[in-house]
Formats: sequence, structure tokens, C-alpha cells
Amino acid sequence: MGFEHGKRTKVWCCRDMMGGFNHYVVVKFKDGVAVEELTEGLVKMVSGIEHVKSFQWGKDIGGPDFLRQGFTHAFLMTFNGKEEFDAFQSHPNHVEFSKLFSPAVENILVLDFPPTIVKA
Amino acid sequence: MGFEHGKRTKVWCCRDMMGGFNHYVVVKFKDGVAVEELTEGLVKMVSGIEHVKSFQWGKDIGGPDFLRQGFTHAFLMTFNGKEEFDAFQSHPNHVEFSKLFSPAVENILVLDFPPTIVKA
Repeated sequence: MGFEHGKRTKVWCCRDMMGGFNHYVVVKFKDGVAVEELTEGLVKMVSGIEHVKSFQWGKDIGGPDFLRQGFTHAFLMTFNGKEEFDAFQSHPNHVEFSKLFSPAVENILVLDFPPTIVKA
Repeated sequence: MGFEHGKRTKVWCCRDMMGGFNHYVVVKFKDGVAVEELTEGLVKMVSGIEHVKSFQWGKDIGGPDFLRQGFTHAFLMTFNGKEEFDAFQSHPNHVEFSKLFSPAVENILVLDFPPTIVKA
């Protein structure tokens, strides 16, 4: 079947991912925060907003502490373009959830950029 | 054609991405560093190591400065698993390139995690 053909899949994959926009958020939560509950709420909120193209997240299990600088969680969202990202940012569900999320955050780092896809 | 069939493509996409391992690096370079040259070298190095499954990077064009905390560049590599990541980390080309990269870095943040793919 076509979709199992390596080359075709790759072509679909790269063309589709180019010209997009990435929103990468790294967080350290305050002590005592119910992190699992909060990330569940985040997943629900993000999943419900159609402008988000892809979303993955994870908890660092990595190397030395000086490299993570106290941060623990990474949330990676991609969009088809800056317009979709802006629509996500101002979406009522996002704005509403931020009121819950922001007070739980001790430190946050955000990078927004049009990605260069080297390997997909 | 099969690969243009949305549902099939999605199934390929998610199954393929699950159980992987992400290496997310955020960098601020020192003043005077030839950043373009350095990222070109990085792209070359990463592209040449087969253990890397996907690689994308970008320069922040985002919001307020307090959210990026001085960082400018994001690099995201994915691997099929922790083993492939470890192989990349200890790969001679990686080790060699680090000698060039590390002195150019003013601040670096690294998060390594098995991702939860919510939307792909």
C-alpha cells in the first residue's frame, strides 16, 4: 500500500511540516502543585482547540541537573502557521486555562519559532 | 493513493512516534559567535548520525523577553528509543562537534524525555 512506501511517506511528512510554527514551553511547577491533574487539564484544553496541529509533552528523565536548570516538563506544540498559533493564544479556552496554569508555575521558558526541518 | 488517505497516514504517524525519546536543547550563544556557521555544522553532524530519527530547530521570534529568558535557539531531536539516544550521545562525530559547540554557548538547557503524543 502506498502509505507503507518509505519514500512517499517521507515526502508527505516533510512537505506537510514545512512552513509551520512551533510553540515550545518548558516549565518548573511550584511545590505542592497537583502536576498530573494540571497536565491532564492542559491535554484536554489543547486537544479541544483545532488550530493546534500537533502536541506532545514529557517529563525530563535526563542527565545532570545543571543542564535542566530546575525545569521538569516540556510541552511542544506545532501549528500550520503563525496565524493558527495566534488563534490558539487568544482562544477563550486557552485564556481560561491560563488562569489555572499560571499560578502553578514557578519558572517558565517559551520559545516560538518557524522550524527548519532537517530530518523528519 | 493510500498515503493521501488521512486516517491511514495518522495511524502510521502515531504508532511510529510512540515509545520514542526526545532530546530538547535550548541555547543562548556567546556574543561574537558565528551562529550560522555553527548551526550549519550542527545540522551536518546530526544529519550524518543514523540514530537520529528526526531533527528540527529554529530561532525564537516570539513574545516577551522574560518568557525566553535570554535563550534564542531551540533544537529538537527525536529517537526511536533511549538506546538510540545514548548511541547518538557517545557517537564520535557528536563528541568531536561538542568541542566546537560547547565553548560557543553562554547558556544551555537540556530536557530528555519519552514523549506522550497527544496529537500527531
